[in-house]
Amino acid sequence: MLQLYFSPMACSLASRIALMEAGLDAQYHQVHLLTKTIVDDGSDFHGVAAKGAVPVLVLENGERLTESAAVLQYIADLKPETRLAPPLGDPDRYRLQEWLSFVGAEIHKAFLFPTFWYKDDGSLAKPRARIAQTLSVPATHLADREFLVGNRFTVADAHLAWALLLLRPAGVDIAQWPSLSAYLERMQARPRVREAIATEMALRKQMTA
Amino acid sequence: MLQLYFSPMACSLASRIALMEAGLDAQYHQVHLLTKTIVDDGSDFHGVAAKGAVPVLVLENGERLTESAAVLQYIADLKPETRLAPPLGDPDRYRLQEWLSFVGAEIHKAFLFPTFWYKDDGSLAKPRARIAQTLSVPATHLADREFLVGNRFTVADAHLAWALLLLRPAGVDIAQWPSLSAYLERMQARPRVREAIATEMALRKQMTA
Repeated sequence: MLQLYFSPMACSLASRIALMEAGLDAQYHQVHLLTKTIVDDGSDFHGVAAKGAVPVLVLENGERLTESAAVLQYIADLKPETRLAPPLGDPDRYRLQEWLSFVGAEIHKAFLFPTFWYKDDGSLAKPRARIAQTLSVPATHLADREFLVGNRFTVADAHLAWALLLLRPAGVDIAQWPSLSAYLERMQARPRVREAIATEMALRKQMTA
Repeated sequence: MLQLYFSPMACSLASRIALMEAGLDAQYHQVHLLTKTIVDDGSDFHGVAAKGAVPVLVLENGERLTESAAVLQYIADLKPETRLAPPLGDPDRYRLQEWLSFVGAEIHKAFLFPTFWYKDDGSLAKPRARIAQTLSVPATHLADREFLVGNRFTVADAHLAWALLLLRPAGVDIAQWPSLSAYLERMQARPRVREAIATEMALRKQMTA
């Protein structure tokens, strides 16, 4: 069975959503990212992944795959009939890769990561000054589209929905971009997305209780 | 013919290397990233790409593709016989995507981008404190490997070679990681890589002259 190392509401939420939308069973292992320990048994997470970052997907053959862009495409390709990614060789596959890169680099790594890890004003002034321009890109794209790629839900939507969810605790009110807030509402109306978020929000509350 | 919008020694260098390694002709349009103008005619680069970032690859059908991870895979897949990416459906394709994401997010967006764009010490203290840990990941991986993925040059190597080249002007001496400096030397010994770098270094010197 597949195994996913995750931290509640971290970017690994997108991988959980993808697994659930694909109808794939998996074992979920919670990681405490500050202490880099695995919650199950308190062991060192670096033993699983030298990077110390989630998501880590343990494949059926025991290999470990990291980085959301790779993990999400891997999950989608396990169940091509669910069309969670455009088929291999379809021109839209490159659009999927384009959005996975944009969300991972421009929203996550350039803004959410420093916000939640660096925290000090010196680190955050410039990322904060850029985020509105960054968000205008998906806001414009989604003004007349229901999904990021093609006419159906893909793993790129799982990735962006996660990033948009994190913007509020990061101090950005996405109501400024009506197309983004409407999109996030649509994504959260999907039963599997709602269930994935509810599961991780409950785990997150336990952590801070 | 394909067209590539690039800025000398920016991350679009990886796309130029990929095009040259693939033996693909392309028209190259230089962009001035500070002023967001196209050098050919002084026109506004936002007219080509709302994001205002390179690379932008104009495909044969006129569509524009952005983000290195997508552009590099697109170029590789145009010439599958050059094996610049593992074939579609090959498990190593996910390793390629893993490295493209890591280089794009962890080295480029988390370190090189703030170094060259934000510049002030407040913005840079934490990215600087993290970069050695980040670089230990490819350094360990390359300790007993010639290339990032499989046993041959791929577009992931084009991406990492570019990032390593930029570390020196960013104030990081990669001699601390012998496997990385040996790798960069191997990459620079490839005729197409050397030619791509020489072309862009010459254009870069003109800009600062």
